[in-house]
Amino acid sequence: MQAGYQLDDTIIAPSTPSGQGALALIRLTGPKSIEWTEHLLGHQKLSSAASHTAHFGLLKRKDGSIVDEVVITVFKGPHSYTRQDVIEISCHGSDFIVQEILNLYFDLGARMAEGGEFTLRAYMNGQLDLSQAEAVADLIAAESQKAHELALNQLRGGFSKEIEKLRTQLIDFASLIELELDFGEEDVEFADRSALTQTVEHIQSLIQKLIDSFQMGNAVKKGISTVIAGRPNAGKSTLLNALLQEERAIVSEIEGTTRDTIEESIVIEGVQFRLIDTAGLREAADQIEAIGVQKTYEKIEQAGLVLFVFDAARTSAQQLEEDIAPFINQKYGLILIANKTDLLKDQQALHPLSALSAEVPFLKLSAATHEGLQELHDTLIQVSNLKQLGNQQAIVTNSRHYEALVKAHEDLHRVLQGLSGGVTSDFVAMDIRQALYHLGSITGEISTDDLLGNIFGKFCIGK
Amino acid sequence: MQAGYQLDDTIIAPSTPSGQGALALIRLTGPKSIEWTEHLLGHQKLSSAASHTAHFGLLKRKDGSIVDEVVITVFKGPHSYTRQDVIEISCHGSDFIVQEILNLYFDLGARMAEGGEFTLRAYMNGQLDLSQAEAVADLIAAESQKAHELALNQLRGGFSKEIEKLRTQLIDFASLIELELDFGEEDVEFADRSALTQTVEHIQSLIQKLIDSFQMGNAVKKGISTVIAGRPNAGKSTLLNALLQEERAIVSEIEGTTRDTIEESIVIEGVQFRLIDTAGLREAADQIEAIGVQKTYEKIEQAGLVLFVFDAARTSAQQLEEDIAPFINQKYGLILIANKTDLLKDQQALHPLSALSAEVPFLKLSAATHEGLQELHDTLIQVSNLKQLGNQQAIVTNSRHYEALVKAHEDLHRVLQGLSGGVTSDFVAMDIRQALYHLGSITGEISTDDLLGNIFGKFCIGK
Repeated sequence: MQAGYQLDDTIIAPSTPSGQGALALIRLTGPKSIEWTEHLLGHQKLSSAASHTAHFGLLKRKDGSIVDEVVITVFKGPHSYTRQDVIEISCHGSDFIVQEILNLYFDLGARMAEGGEFTLRAYMNGQLDLSQAEAVADLIAAESQKAHELALNQLRGGFSKEIEKLRTQLIDFASLIELELDFGEEDVEFADRSALTQTVEHIQSLIQKLIDSFQMGNAVKKGISTVIAGRPNAGKSTLLNALLQEERAIVSEIEGTTRDTIEESIVIEGVQFRLIDTAGLREAADQIEAIGVQKTYEKIEQAGLVLFVFDAARTSAQQLEEDIAPFINQKYGLILIANKTDLLKDQQALHPLSALSAEVPFLKLSAATHEGLQELHDTLIQVSNLKQLGNQQAIVTNSRHYEALVKAHEDLHRVLQGLSGGVTSDFVAMDIRQALYHLGSITGEISTDDLLGNIFGKFCIGK
Repeated sequence: MQAGYQLDDTIIAPSTPSGQGALALIRLTGPKSIEWTEHLLGHQKLSSAASHTAHFGLLKRKDGSIVDEVVITVFKGPHSYTRQDVIEISCHGSDFIVQEILNLYFDLGARMAEGGEFTLRAYMNGQLDLSQAEAVADLIAAESQKAHELALNQLRGGFSKEIEKLRTQLIDFASLIELELDFGEEDVEFADRSALTQTVEHIQSLIQKLIDSFQMGNAVKKGISTVIAGRPNAGKSTLLNALLQEERAIVSEIEGTTRDTIEESIVIEGVQFRLIDTAGLREAADQIEAIGVQKTYEKIEQAGLVLFVFDAARTSAQQLEEDIAPFINQKYGLILIANKTDLLKDQQALHPLSALSAEVPFLKLSAATHEGLQELHDTLIQVSNLKQLGNQQAIVTNSRHYEALVKAHEDLHRVLQGLSGGVTSDFVAMDIRQALYHLGSITGEISTDDLLGNIFGKFCIGK
């Protein structure tokens, strides 16, 4: 994205994925959209047409040859996505035709839109705030019900409203402080400092709640990184296959079959789990396996959830307690899985596990026969802790928002210090302004070219 | 495609390729399209809206949760592609959202459209004839300017008009014969048999012209299969890379480097050439190479054009004449290429080739330095014989049309035999009806469920 953000030229881009399909959509926006399209159609019916109307037509080259039969839909600014004139061209779904149509417009002076440039214009022209614009990309990328819900809520302004509420409270507070500043020389304290402290603490607690929601929001958006770990031949790959309901990983009775980590996604009750099958944890037999084991530890480091699998029939209580000790009380969630229950003779009693607090879920199942798999599904949902999502309106899913909130929280911390330490109002006011700046950067009340370039550069072309 | 072709239920399908994009299009057609969409939007504004108008709205689940913000365009029958009510839904470009929207309509009773079912309805309702419907699929698949031109001309009815002209002439002729039949008992010959013969011969010659155009039309549509053949180390892979302008094939000085055939396409002046690099022709050194050489011969069998490449510096006149003998006067085109001219000392004279007629183009070039490559481009276009395409209106590109024309031609041959042999009018009339039947099957005046199933079953979903 270029700095400066030209908003007054006419840009074009394909809006649907490339490849053969029945149809493809191309989108134009900018002051020349309608004029150029009329030129290519060979008539002037679009400028007099009402907004939001569709028109059949032929797009022609200079030599009169036809590029395609198309349906053109006119959206007249400001009643459009970008608030400028927008033309949507629905043509036959071939990359060749799409390219030929783009060429027609390039010849007239249109510029290929950069990634996210349509949405950038929507933001610059006040159609969306920044966090809503960001939600557009999240919405397109959403692969599960919950991620979709969060993105849509953000797009529809739910999150922005929460941030706006905080900002309004803070602005009210700031105006009291600024009032003090104006009369500063008279050394009058209008604002009751203990009441002020209460207000700031309240705002801070709301921000904290948002900050806390990030881990959950991020898990929902990106899926929960779920590592399947355990000793070799505990049945980790069989469990992966059982969860995926397909033969994804190679399974054998030879210890150390899995070397590369295998990653696949499943969605349970609208929540996405990124399952990661790993090399079994032991002293590696060879160089390749050693690298595999190393990778397992790296994956566990980054996990949101670890499924520790052991062979129910062959694992002694002592060995198990040793094996799982490093996984207890870590930042990731843990589910303990006694596998191969189908091989248990006489339902051998499974050893009690003293090392485990009652909080670690303990399941018995057979990955081979799928017995107990439903319980694992239920436990995954329970442990992922996302049931409560429905109740909370604003969830932070975006690391940029998270960082801004953390900074605003720090600013308010300094405000509180200032208030209690009897610092003069102008210092307190400065910290409040910083907090307001950070909150404002979320919705884009405050933005810089760098920030915008960063955000919209990640969008796909045509959005 | 089911037999019977239900036309009165409501069908839905995504119309744009799957994958992440800015937007995706979903299309519905059938009597419930508008009603169901109003239900999901929660208002009744579409039925009263004008045709060809676009409406912003929210599609909601039963529980009130939003699936997406969409733009709905209404096309009211008969002013639509299928001549039934059509609803186009432009939603955010995510497979998840597309599936959720499909589900909303499935719940209401919509049926997933089968491949080509929208176009089938367009045909059944008289919007397109059969050859035009077939052109829709060709248009989407077209990868070159010329293929695109032919498909578009066919879609716009250019080809159908030619066929209709032939049919009209034949119907006029048939009516004369049938008149004779009516008065048959009185043994009167109304029609002058020598004039009749002339008419049939004229129609037959027009059909022959169309039949002849098929080879060209098919080459344009599918690209011209162009095999690069020659002895090992003649520089075939280097030539492929030079034509593609990329390092596609592995090149080495070791004879027999290429084993698998490599296929890549280039488009020159709007014509697509499917280049096929092959194993060098010689007694194979090993089993794998032997299979490669076998494949080379198979590819040559199916070729439209063979580029026979030889090493200009190392090939004796005698050897060359022996090598190229099997390629002379075959059904494919031939271009003879003296490669590695950059290695020629003192511009050694290239031996005159007595075995070659003057008609076989003979080029000198260096695939390594790209010298002479432009001449090869020019020669490819010349040999492909497609320059004349611009002049001829109707080109047969479809093997179904080709077969129908060949059959009609045979029918007319029998008509001519009947006329000259003094066969009675009723036999002649029968053959004419057969010819009319075959011509009619091209545009779909005459069709069967099997035929339609065959044609539309090859379409992509959503078209």
